[in-house]
Amino acid sequence: MDRGIDVGVSIVEKAKIAKGAALKLANATTAEKDKALLRIADSIDKNRKQILEANEKDIEDAASLTKEGKMSKSLLDRLKLDDSKIDEIIKSTKDVAKLEDPVGKTLSAIELDKDLELFQVSYPIGVIGAIFESRPDVLVQISSLCLKTGNAVMLKGGSEARNSNEALFDVVSEAASEGDGIPEGWIQLLETREEVSAMLKLNEYIDLLVPRGSEQFVKYIQNNSSIMVLGHSEGICHVYVDRDANLDMALDICCDSKVQYPAVCNAAETLLVDSAIASEFLPRIAERYQKAGVEVRGCSKTMQFLAGKTEKKPASEEDWHTEYNDLIIAIKVVDGVDEAIEHINHYGSGHTDAIVTENKKTALKFMQFVDSSSVMHNASTRFSDGFRYGKGAEVGISTYKVHARGPVGLEGLVIYKYLLVGKGHIVAPYVGAKAREFSHKKLPQNFSF
Amino acid sequence: MDRGIDVGVSIVEKAKIAKGAALKLANATTAEKDKALLRIADSIDKNRKQILEANEKDIEDAASLTKEGKMSKSLLDRLKLDDSKIDEIIKSTKDVAKLEDPVGKTLSAIELDKDLELFQVSYPIGVIGAIFESRPDVLVQISSLCLKTGNAVMLKGGSEARNSNEALFDVVSEAASEGDGIPEGWIQLLETREEVSAMLKLNEYIDLLVPRGSEQFVKYIQNNSSIMVLGHSEGICHVYVDRDANLDMALDICCDSKVQYPAVCNAAETLLVDSAIASEFLPRIAERYQKAGVEVRGCSKTMQFLAGKTEKKPASEEDWHTEYNDLIIAIKVVDGVDEAIEHINHYGSGHTDAIVTENKKTALKFMQFVDSSSVMHNASTRFSDGFRYGKGAEVGISTYKVHARGPVGLEGLVIYKYLLVGKGHIVAPYVGAKAREFSHKKLPQNFSF
Repeated sequence: MDRGIDVGVSIVEKAKIAKGAALKLANATTAEKDKALLRIADSIDKNRKQILEANEKDIEDAASLTKEGKMSKSLLDRLKLDDSKIDEIIKSTKDVAKLEDPVGKTLSAIELDKDLELFQVSYPIGVIGAIFESRPDVLVQISSLCLKTGNAVMLKGGSEARNSNEALFDVVSEAASEGDGIPEGWIQLLETREEVSAMLKLNEYIDLLVPRGSEQFVKYIQNNSSIMVLGHSEGICHVYVDRDANLDMALDICCDSKVQYPAVCNAAETLLVDSAIASEFLPRIAERYQKAGVEVRGCSKTMQFLAGKTEKKPASEEDWHTEYNDLIIAIKVVDGVDEAIEHINHYGSGHTDAIVTENKKTALKFMQFVDSSSVMHNASTRFSDGFRYGKGAEVGISTYKVHARGPVGLEGLVIYKYLLVGKGHIVAPYVGAKAREFSHKKLPQNFSF
Repeated sequence: MDRGIDVGVSIVEKAKIAKGAALKLANATTAEKDKALLRIADSIDKNRKQILEANEKDIEDAASLTKEGKMSKSLLDRLKLDDSKIDEIIKSTKDVAKLEDPVGKTLSAIELDKDLELFQVSYPIGVIGAIFESRPDVLVQISSLCLKTGNAVMLKGGSEARNSNEALFDVVSEAASEGDGIPEGWIQLLETREEVSAMLKLNEYIDLLVPRGSEQFVKYIQNNSSIMVLGHSEGICHVYVDRDANLDMALDICCDSKVQYPAVCNAAETLLVDSAIASEFLPRIAERYQKAGVEVRGCSKTMQFLAGKTEKKPASEEDWHTEYNDLIIAIKVVDGVDEAIEHINHYGSGHTDAIVTENKKTALKFMQFVDSSSVMHNASTRFSDGFRYGKGAEVGISTYKVHARGPVGLEGLVIYKYLLVGKGHIVAPYVGAKAREFSHKKLPQNFSF
């Protein structure tokens, strides 16, 4: 396999090639894109041996880093490919082919005047810059999502996965371009760390950055680029148990939100308990948490309510700011829903927060005033996820408040274009004293030509 | 009048106050917001004298700058208020009150499983940072649009309009907060140039920047902030006259696109003429342009076709890159639609481009492959505008390809929030070997509670 044009080509050249390819890929048909995705899945299957051999090299290099303490065991696990991981990659690529194409949809259609019709049609964004840590599966996943949405992509993966990334890039890039409609150059691989800094300055070519990795990593990207970033900061999620909660239900939701998968961003980090039910609820939830191996860190009131009962530690100010991603929960007693809302808007990260209550008025207040991308009533924070929200695929979870917010599916990689179709219409008659009026009537039809 | 909390308060304090107010304003009802807009309109009317006196001071200071050549006549015109401009400001504020409230709309509603319902509801963005040159009317316009959409706003106007801005800010801020639902502090005025640089770093508080002014001004903002910017770069718009054009129609569209109002971003700067009709069309359009006082700058072929005819100058490479905003047009002869598309995607600014042709296949190709936010078929580029597109108000024209593209109305100041309503649902049963399946069925109803 040969990376052709990419060897020794400067990053600006790569960006120019990607931008040129994006214009063509934007108009590839759904069938052309889906066939390309199936070719990619097929080619990954056929090239298993080469891919695993390349990954083997990365693992060997990384093993020495692990011994020296420069790489954690969990990073090594994410770097490692095996047959079952390859199977998953193949399956998820095929799944992307099955999703509905979000490009070319008529989002609005209005008549400005007789025979002057305006259509707003969904369209790819252009060139996506994807930056991710050493997980080779992410390379295929992001490329598939970009291909499906008609976007070109510039990829920079963690250097520990260099050999795996090169092997997968070769397979994806060659398989995609073998059929009709997919231009060469729509996918570009960056290979050095220096190229990342250069990439962040490429406003002229890159329309959106999609970083995947730790919070610090995403923040670094955000603070060092004026290109729009689709990425999430932290997941400091809360569950608030209100005075009018069904306490059995609350126990299950508090437990699921923390314990079901603590390492992820939609797991709860802080539990807020209404003072009115604290004496009854706190010992019960503390016991549940103790059984599940969860460390409890309580505010002073929590410590009092639990005095002589289950194990606990006092929480410090820092705890309210912390995303543990682990079996630890901070618990605070609050005086009702208003204090809960205030705490969440102050310490939360705008990700996902839940209220447990049977009182509809209280629930509505919470849903209105908690400023987070997902607000749950009587449901676990863990539902906040692209697949669970029915998006088919998840591009990421955004804690930004522009472009896309919360769990983002393919719609986050799509924008629109206005097409105005006239019969020689000019603006002059619509201006001045006897100006002709616009009709601005909704049209029933989609754009077709 | 007293600016109360704003005197001597640091920009970070102002930002904190704005963020706090935003959370409340986000939940103001449509009636509360519309009443506040009418109070503002009324109060501007009642405080005409003070506003005009404040403006008089700015004009006096500016007059000396004008004499020294430090301020252009047109800037002075934009700075000056009079009774008829105040009338316009009042009218446009009342018009904003009449627009449909874009907040609180159910954008999607799906059932994830029985009694587990997900609603995507439109919601204000939060805090908008508005930076504009010395046009006092813009202060009222941007504040009205932010109030209507439930966003807090931090305003920084040109220092030449300082007195006018302070007077208008006092009126808007006091009138708004006099009624129910509108929190104090939702509007903040910054007064020094230093505060602009500080504002660009306030990622933690400001969610979106809306700069208004010259291209260099907007670019400066973009390059010096990692906050998302809603603003347009240039308007290098093209009209392409195809071999299959109705040439009479083409003459009108070329003339309207250039001449009807040359100072604006949606006016055409470059005319591309298909070589197949160049000998017939070029002398006719050159004559029309000459009559209208338009200077023609032609490529070498254009110069040949016009040899011995109307006045013209040779165009240089720079002309294809230039937004004249004046009665000047660059003309290039191209070999058909493909070269036209290539020229536009290379030299254009992604704003608005038009094709004149009776050939549907050619028109479709042009609309598909020209990568601009508005693409016109047999219509003037001048239609590309928020009001003409039926948006009621125009927040700006975006040449970005994320968040909002092209003419942007109130929808550009709105995002959404996901509300998940369950009955004690937890994630555990949906995970693992015997995982319960999600139904992901569309729900017919809007969010209500």
